[in-house]
Amino acid sequence: MQPSSKVTRRNFLVTSGAGATAVCLSRKTNGYTGTEMSAMAAADKLTGVSKWDLDTPALCVDLDKFEQNLRTLRNTLAGTGVASRPHGKTHKCPAIAKLQLASGSIGICAAKLSEAEVFAANGIDKILMTTSNVSPAKIRRAMALRKKNRHFIQAVDYPKNARDLNDAAKEAGIVADVVVDVAIGTRSGVPAGDQAIALAELVDTLPHLELRGVISYDGGAQHIKGFKTRLEQTLGRFAASVETFERMKRSGLNTEIFSGGGTGTYNILPKAAGVTDVQVGSYIFMDCQYVEIGGESNDEVFDDFASSLTVVTTVLNTYFPGSLTTDAGAKALTLNKPGPWVIGEKGFAYNAGSDEFGVIRYEKAERSYQVGDKLELVVPHCDPVVNEYDQMYAIRKDRVESVWPVLARGRSQ
Amino acid sequence: MQPSSKVTRRNFLVTSGAGATAVCLSRKTNGYTGTEMSAMAAADKLTGVSKWDLDTPALCVDLDKFEQNLRTLRNTLAGTGVASRPHGKTHKCPAIAKLQLASGSIGICAAKLSEAEVFAANGIDKILMTTSNVSPAKIRRAMALRKKNRHFIQAVDYPKNARDLNDAAKEAGIVADVVVDVAIGTRSGVPAGDQAIALAELVDTLPHLELRGVISYDGGAQHIKGFKTRLEQTLGRFAASVETFERMKRSGLNTEIFSGGGTGTYNILPKAAGVTDVQVGSYIFMDCQYVEIGGESNDEVFDDFASSLTVVTTVLNTYFPGSLTTDAGAKALTLNKPGPWVIGEKGFAYNAGSDEFGVIRYEKAERSYQVGDKLELVVPHCDPVVNEYDQMYAIRKDRVESVWPVLARGRSQ
Repeated sequence: MQPSSKVTRRNFLVTSGAGATAVCLSRKTNGYTGTEMSAMAAADKLTGVSKWDLDTPALCVDLDKFEQNLRTLRNTLAGTGVASRPHGKTHKCPAIAKLQLASGSIGICAAKLSEAEVFAANGIDKILMTTSNVSPAKIRRAMALRKKNRHFIQAVDYPKNARDLNDAAKEAGIVADVVVDVAIGTRSGVPAGDQAIALAELVDTLPHLELRGVISYDGGAQHIKGFKTRLEQTLGRFAASVETFERMKRSGLNTEIFSGGGTGTYNILPKAAGVTDVQVGSYIFMDCQYVEIGGESNDEVFDDFASSLTVVTTVLNTYFPGSLTTDAGAKALTLNKPGPWVIGEKGFAYNAGSDEFGVIRYEKAERSYQVGDKLELVVPHCDPVVNEYDQMYAIRKDRVESVWPVLARGRSQ
Repeated sequence: MQPSSKVTRRNFLVTSGAGATAVCLSRKTNGYTGTEMSAMAAADKLTGVSKWDLDTPALCVDLDKFEQNLRTLRNTLAGTGVASRPHGKTHKCPAIAKLQLASGSIGICAAKLSEAEVFAANGIDKILMTTSNVSPAKIRRAMALRKKNRHFIQAVDYPKNARDLNDAAKEAGIVADVVVDVAIGTRSGVPAGDQAIALAELVDTLPHLELRGVISYDGGAQHIKGFKTRLEQTLGRFAASVETFERMKRSGLNTEIFSGGGTGTYNILPKAAGVTDVQVGSYIFMDCQYVEIGGESNDEVFDDFASSLTVVTTVLNTYFPGSLTTDAGAKALTLNKPGPWVIGEKGFAYNAGSDEFGVIRYEKAERSYQVGDKLELVVPHCDPVVNEYDQMYAIRKDRVESVWPVLARGRSQ
């Protein structure tokens, strides 16, 4: 650890690799492919496979850090009266959803219906779908999902949509659970205030819908830099949702759910009146984007959670001074900024702008690199990176402990 | 068509929708999912399914435009003595590779070994792998691929790698075909000149390798705006590769392959001495990035090829003036710039910055939109967009004619 009490971002890059090998300079020779790893996992024969011996690019989750993140969230929320309902869009992985539920989360969110269907088909029952289903086919499928699964809840943000859901629920012979999505900003949801109240009242009168409460998510608030600024702006922007929720409550409408927030505001939203749960996603992985926003105790680095998600990549070219080429480009890391951080190398600027290749520029390296060496990268933005891979490797002390299929990968529908 | 002989980018946006329905304001009700479409295709029961009746986001290829692009490439290259060897990384789809070969292309390129393996396993034999295999496991797999497939050729850019390939070929009991990858810029390949010649000579002496020639790809040249600038810079940057190639030829080394270039330089590289084939990729789809670079006959719009690849998306929110939310965000379109273009709407600015949602800002719309309406988008950059989808829909006159599985999707290893 650094002697200074504050961990700066640059130091973080180094310390986050401490205790783990940040670079593999030796040449592991098996280079197990995804297919081979799946087969070995199915046959319970993973013992001893090193993360440095995976075919690259390989998506890895450090289990010690991941589990620490689960505990941190649980411990921080304990005593606030606010629960967690983590967003499945972050990991798209039923295996992780199960670990979150086992760690005390009250359910899982899903962004898209096809994603919710995958979670439901793989043992997750408590699903709140945060996007409205607006097409006739999606509405029918949502009702089929609700019919099989009494814990499925879906968002609604239009009166017409509420009537369509009611008709479809009637046709399916069920009463469907819905939450009113109250807008913050202009992306999704019904405007707070009168329109939201009117929608909630409409839902309450429709015989085949059951109003369960409110969701209100502020996408723009999550990455506001600096805790104080984030705190003030988040609560300010959330005020209209709180007021709407309280009006609903006073009207005697069901307000058992008031869900919102994300990883950037997990310790802010509990300060708002009435909030029942936070829809945290990235807390399990902690990507570069979130590290940079700063936390309550460290304004430079949001270090409440540990960066557990990495991509292992192979060096392909070292001919050109001050430059290294790797096999992980935009298809392995996305174009999100900041670019990936190379664990153990403070001075590396990694550009994942090529589809197939990563390009590192540097003035000074901690060591010299050869073609075939492996580097480990903290990912820029976890959600879309996970969506590039069919599976993640769950790693404990550099060994693969499990293979987690990303079963909802590509389910953007 | 426009009365003016030059088609501007803004007009292009409108005319590219002409003849096709650009927007679906009616509500198709089936919303066929990917699974349903695959099953219908397998049972030969696709007749009549409209592209507007697909679950969204849906990745579509307009077959008339796609086939026109195949013909344009063939006709333009005819008489130049230069062939095409299209890059499979663009489409990751054996069905498309077969159509390219049927249209006269002499082979397919692959960027990664796992991609090449998928093509080989699905009926494509003429594969040139443009990235070197540097890990022991990948080298073994590449030799296994070569052993099954005498048309498989792989790149080499280091003397050590050449020796490793030779050893592995020997162990596999084969003579493996290789091309020397000559660098342009600093991303991949051996520096042009003496180092490249020495490598070619080494390959020539190694008993289990057969030198087939040279590849030399200039990633940076493809998107240089303005044809004249692109022409001059491309040929200037390519000169060292040409010189290297000619020295190899004079030395009596095998130079039957001299492959390079891409869609942006498909009509430039044939002007360089000795080039045998161009590694075009995007010409079949023609994304926003390529449209913007300008062509030889129209400096504003690169309209040699037609934009055939689109994403159909559904409008989810219309509450907020001057703003529409759709269901296609970064996981459906990537973050590449320029943002997607909405066919038929000149004044729409589409931001795919949210993982799950697209946000359109506009001052003036050609029509008014309701929740549930569908829009069709030209994609920002085709390669990584295709990599988000398990299948593409091949469309003829707005009807689905085939379902094309993106079998090498996610094969970034």
